[in-house]
Amino acid sequence: MEANASNNNMQQSHSHSCLEITMEVHKVVPPPPTSSLKKLKTRLKETFFPDDPLRQFKGKSLKKKWVLGAQYVFPVLQWGPNYNLKLLKSDVVAGLTIASLAIPQGISYAKLANLPPIVGLYSSFVPPLVYAVLGSSRDLAVGPVSIASLIMGSMLRQEVSPTKEPVLFLQLAFSSTFFAGLFQASLGLLRLGFIIDFLSKAILIGFMAGAAIIVSLQQLKALLGITHFTKQMGLVPVLSSVFHHTDEWSWQTILMGFCLLVFLLLSRHISIKRPKLFWVSAGAPLVSVILSTLLVFAFKAQNHGISVIGKLPEGLNPPSWNMLRLHGSHLGLVIKTGLVTGIISLTEGIAVGRTFAALKNYRVDGNKEMMAIGLMNMVGSSTSCYVTTGAFSRSAVNHNAGAKTAVSNVIMSVTVMLTLLFLMPLFQYTPNVVLGAIIVTAVIGLIDIPAAYQIWKIDKFDFFVLLCALLGVIFISVQDGLAIAVGISIFKLLLQITRPKTVVLGNIPGTNIYRNLHHYKEAVRVPGFLIWSVEAPINFANTTYLNERILRWIEENEAEEDEKKQPSLHFLILDMSAVSSIDTSGVAFFKELNQTLENKGVELVLVNPLAEVIEKLQRADDIRDFMMRPESLYLTVGEAVASLSLTMKGQSSSSV
Amino acid sequence: MEANASNNNMQQSHSHSCLEITMEVHKVVPPPPTSSLKKLKTRLKETFFPDDPLRQFKGKSLKKKWVLGAQYVFPVLQWGPNYNLKLLKSDVVAGLTIASLAIPQGISYAKLANLPPIVGLYSSFVPPLVYAVLGSSRDLAVGPVSIASLIMGSMLRQEVSPTKEPVLFLQLAFSSTFFAGLFQASLGLLRLGFIIDFLSKAILIGFMAGAAIIVSLQQLKALLGITHFTKQMGLVPVLSSVFHHTDEWSWQTILMGFCLLVFLLLSRHISIKRPKLFWVSAGAPLVSVILSTLLVFAFKAQNHGISVIGKLPEGLNPPSWNMLRLHGSHLGLVIKTGLVTGIISLTEGIAVGRTFAALKNYRVDGNKEMMAIGLMNMVGSSTSCYVTTGAFSRSAVNHNAGAKTAVSNVIMSVTVMLTLLFLMPLFQYTPNVVLGAIIVTAVIGLIDIPAAYQIWKIDKFDFFVLLCALLGVIFISVQDGLAIAVGISIFKLLLQITRPKTVVLGNIPGTNIYRNLHHYKEAVRVPGFLIWSVEAPINFANTTYLNERILRWIEENEAEEDEKKQPSLHFLILDMSAVSSIDTSGVAFFKELNQTLENKGVELVLVNPLAEVIEKLQRADDIRDFMMRPESLYLTVGEAVASLSLTMKGQSSSSV
Repeated sequence: MEANASNNNMQQSHSHSCLEITMEVHKVVPPPPTSSLKKLKTRLKETFFPDDPLRQFKGKSLKKKWVLGAQYVFPVLQWGPNYNLKLLKSDVVAGLTIASLAIPQGISYAKLANLPPIVGLYSSFVPPLVYAVLGSSRDLAVGPVSIASLIMGSMLRQEVSPTKEPVLFLQLAFSSTFFAGLFQASLGLLRLGFIIDFLSKAILIGFMAGAAIIVSLQQLKALLGITHFTKQMGLVPVLSSVFHHTDEWSWQTILMGFCLLVFLLLSRHISIKRPKLFWVSAGAPLVSVILSTLLVFAFKAQNHGISVIGKLPEGLNPPSWNMLRLHGSHLGLVIKTGLVTGIISLTEGIAVGRTFAALKNYRVDGNKEMMAIGLMNMVGSSTSCYVTTGAFSRSAVNHNAGAKTAVSNVIMSVTVMLTLLFLMPLFQYTPNVVLGAIIVTAVIGLIDIPAAYQIWKIDKFDFFVLLCALLGVIFISVQDGLAIAVGISIFKLLLQITRPKTVVLGNIPGTNIYRNLHHYKEAVRVPGFLIWSVEAPINFANTTYLNERILRWIEENEAEEDEKKQPSLHFLILDMSAVSSIDTSGVAFFKELNQTLENKGVELVLVNPLAEVIEKLQRADDIRDFMMRPESLYLTVGEAVASLSLTMKGQSSSSV
Repeated sequence: MEANASNNNMQQSHSHSCLEITMEVHKVVPPPPTSSLKKLKTRLKETFFPDDPLRQFKGKSLKKKWVLGAQYVFPVLQWGPNYNLKLLKSDVVAGLTIASLAIPQGISYAKLANLPPIVGLYSSFVPPLVYAVLGSSRDLAVGPVSIASLIMGSMLRQEVSPTKEPVLFLQLAFSSTFFAGLFQASLGLLRLGFIIDFLSKAILIGFMAGAAIIVSLQQLKALLGITHFTKQMGLVPVLSSVFHHTDEWSWQTILMGFCLLVFLLLSRHISIKRPKLFWVSAGAPLVSVILSTLLVFAFKAQNHGISVIGKLPEGLNPPSWNMLRLHGSHLGLVIKTGLVTGIISLTEGIAVGRTFAALKNYRVDGNKEMMAIGLMNMVGSSTSCYVTTGAFSRSAVNHNAGAKTAVSNVIMSVTVMLTLLFLMPLFQYTPNVVLGAIIVTAVIGLIDIPAAYQIWKIDKFDFFVLLCALLGVIFISVQDGLAIAVGISIFKLLLQITRPKTVVLGNIPGTNIYRNLHHYKEAVRVPGFLIWSVEAPINFANTTYLNERILRWIEENEAEEDEKKQPSLHFLILDMSAVSSIDTSGVAFFKELNQTLENKGVELVLVNPLAEVIEKLQRADDIRDFMMRPESLYLTVGEAVASLSLTMKGQSSSSV
């Protein structure tokens, strides 16, 4: 829309008389010719390889290329050779810290997924090892996470009861994990990672808060000691179940649960207020497990209404590839569960990786991370692990504890291994109530009210999406809430295309600048011109609307003409600077518009059409001739107005 | 992007020395404050009432408002009072012409939908009367159409056999019609008419061609005289069915069919070559029905392998509201069929109405038309009619025959009524082969190869969508082909947002104009600046991409710096003219980008952010301070470059 110095002052009575040099009008040139194949190539590259991952290979020797390739697949080869004792020291501290968090959380989250507690520990052993070799984030602490556990448990429970058919349930869980991994790895391999972008931050905040509420409500079973609890997840059935079984409430459990909750929340509060004291909240779960276990053991509290975990098998992960059910009756359920848990855990893992990478100023390749997380889950599914990913809370602890590389995951994994081998009998008397308290403390951090308030302040529609996700999760179901929120977000995007913004421009007096009349109050309309700017691609979804809208502008203009407020319209200038693309419907739109305007005696002028638009208009036989004439094509609005004003004056003076 | 005359020539060594007056920089002002409620109101109005239908009521007296309101609901009140004998004369001619087409077509299309032939005549009697009162198009000829008939027949046949359970099939057809009407009327009433825009022209051309092929193949049954014909619709099963029953081929039928086809296609050809002879093709179907019926009657050909329609009941439409099955086992099927046939027939009706309105220079209100067509089908469903709409071929004949108002529909309707009352016995010996020939001739016009070629020429992706619709309809099923094509179109729209166009701008020498470096070859980069333009809203779907893309630009720039091809980067100018909106993710994007650039010692400058973008950036506490400073906010790229070049020079000269 810029205009040259010289040409606007013609029709405007300015003081700088020396500006009145010959008017220069800049031509709109067609873009340099490129073949369809080359265009397709560029398009595919921008779609699937925006980060140009092969860039680093350019101009390197063959050997170097091999080394770089191996480093690309196994990031461990990048930092491994430079690893030293100092880094190891930091990683050991961080690894032990997250292990103390991972063991109680692993047991708790497995219960959340209706799986045997031991599976939570298995899942904290193998996947971190795989990630240490394949993953590119230095801060991610890998293991089971609350939301994916919740979703897997609730989706599988719709068809199979974990208490009546525990083996089948376990088989389905491993199979879902396999499909989750397969799906994640495929997304990365096919470079379709952008699909997770559709889970916007607003959706995630609402979704996480809803899930946290659902998860916390489920813990009322453990915290109140209720034995007959509903199998449903919704707010209403859970609350009614709680208050219909008040006779089952156990005061011993409630007392213990209350004390543990206060302790855990307090330690969490301390760590939030003073980040240096991160170890307080990191160690608190393990401390409360030990304390509550000792208490139960000392007072034989299991006989006084406090339920305990019970005996857990010793030993490392048994193989489970023979348990994968990749065909048969529950295949649909397993694939669906894998898809939903896969995408949710992927979103969390990638977001966590990116957050800490940004903090430490290194980069994480999203598509590569997806492959790493996917492979990790596929390996996990055949070694008795369920869905794992990088957890936000644990990675934060890892980061604060000074983790330098993925070795901290290895340390954690080794610690879990030792626990599995030697310490399992100690958990026999661990009360379920402490697991409930640990889960509640963990998920309460997912309710991010300040972020929700910021979203409310900035964008009301995003807040609406957030609310939909939140309420959908609480009142309908976890996966439906998510689907509704994503659906609404996509509907909004489509609506933005279907009803694009259109703006009438006016001249800012004394300049060559044309801006929105409603925004820049000093801007004035140029008599005889309607200057219109469309701010979206013109395509099948909006040509009908644009046609109606433009006719309304012209009719409003005619109404004003009748009231003698406006001289009659001669030119409709369409500023195309923001029309990034066009399709066949868009081409037809111009044909029709030109026809309509001709009937009304108005001339259509295009300003600054972009390369793609020019190309497509040129290719349409019946439009090229009248749209691509130099007299109806200008580079800037200023030049168009200046040049056309002259012809207008010429006409009116000759007719006088 | 325009810039004032005075300020660019500072840093460029131009000849006009008198231009060096004091540099004037125009401020970006925040848009005038509007409440969220008012914004919502404007947004809703633009979304649902872009044509502002209440505009005509403004400032009118109460009585006038009532009259206008009644005219709005019943367009017949607009043209009725001025109706005269001359108009009637034209309408009678047109009405009789389309009746001669409607009677054989009605019988044929009903057979296509697996319904008794008489239903096709019923459907040509009541709906046109309803439309004459409610519809606003003057050229639409209402009745059953081939594609909706095909879809209804094939969808219902998936669950219910029309030969084994004819009554149930009929009930389902009427119920589907009711839901189709309900859906159409609701779309109009809720002003959601834009939904049909998602059936782009490319999709429709592919879909119609595919449907025409499917329909023509189905006619091989009648044209070859096969009795054992497949119940499936796909290309493969139909062809294999045809060639597995060569023993059933009847030479008498084939001979008659061939002659009739040649006659009909020839008359169609004549009318296409000479539009004035429209009556040749309009009358040909009736002539061939009469001729073939006489032939059969004379030679008793029904005993020689030529199948005939058989006895049809006399009398007008029986009521059918007691046949509507609005609950029960087949409800899902009925609703789905209603939805698909409803939207397809609506699309055809609206498109036809708009086409002829544009030709005669009057306007058709899409949402109002939808209500008229919807009500017509709801009334139809309770008077033994199945789905009807404005058919393209018949409306073209109506237009060519000189129809002036909807009275031509009334004339047609009366003619059909007389046929129903008195002429039904005459159809007893009408051979099925003539119906097949009529259908083939009618649908062959739906294959629009020149239009497909135009689409191929203009937009390869649109052609790809067309092909998907075509092949999907032929090889999978009618509704799946349609769904796939719509899905791909929407995916493309989303991809345009997920991967928006981004462009590096350069200065066109000697001007203040900045344009795409790849398009305008004369444009040059300004040293020390990276001028970047994003041509899409910035939102959750593309912030990750934009971040990666911008980093790549900067890194490429750094690589060039190292090779001493470029001076180091000082400023990243983001031209926001084409960023029509932004959401919370977009706001976060700016925060992150600013952080990244600061680390690299590059300053971020925004040019011409639009009203919505300014508002949202202002509302974010942590961004407002650094993004909304006057020194990083300019109205045009030219002014930004001019002003920042000065500071850059100032810095470098002071550091020397």
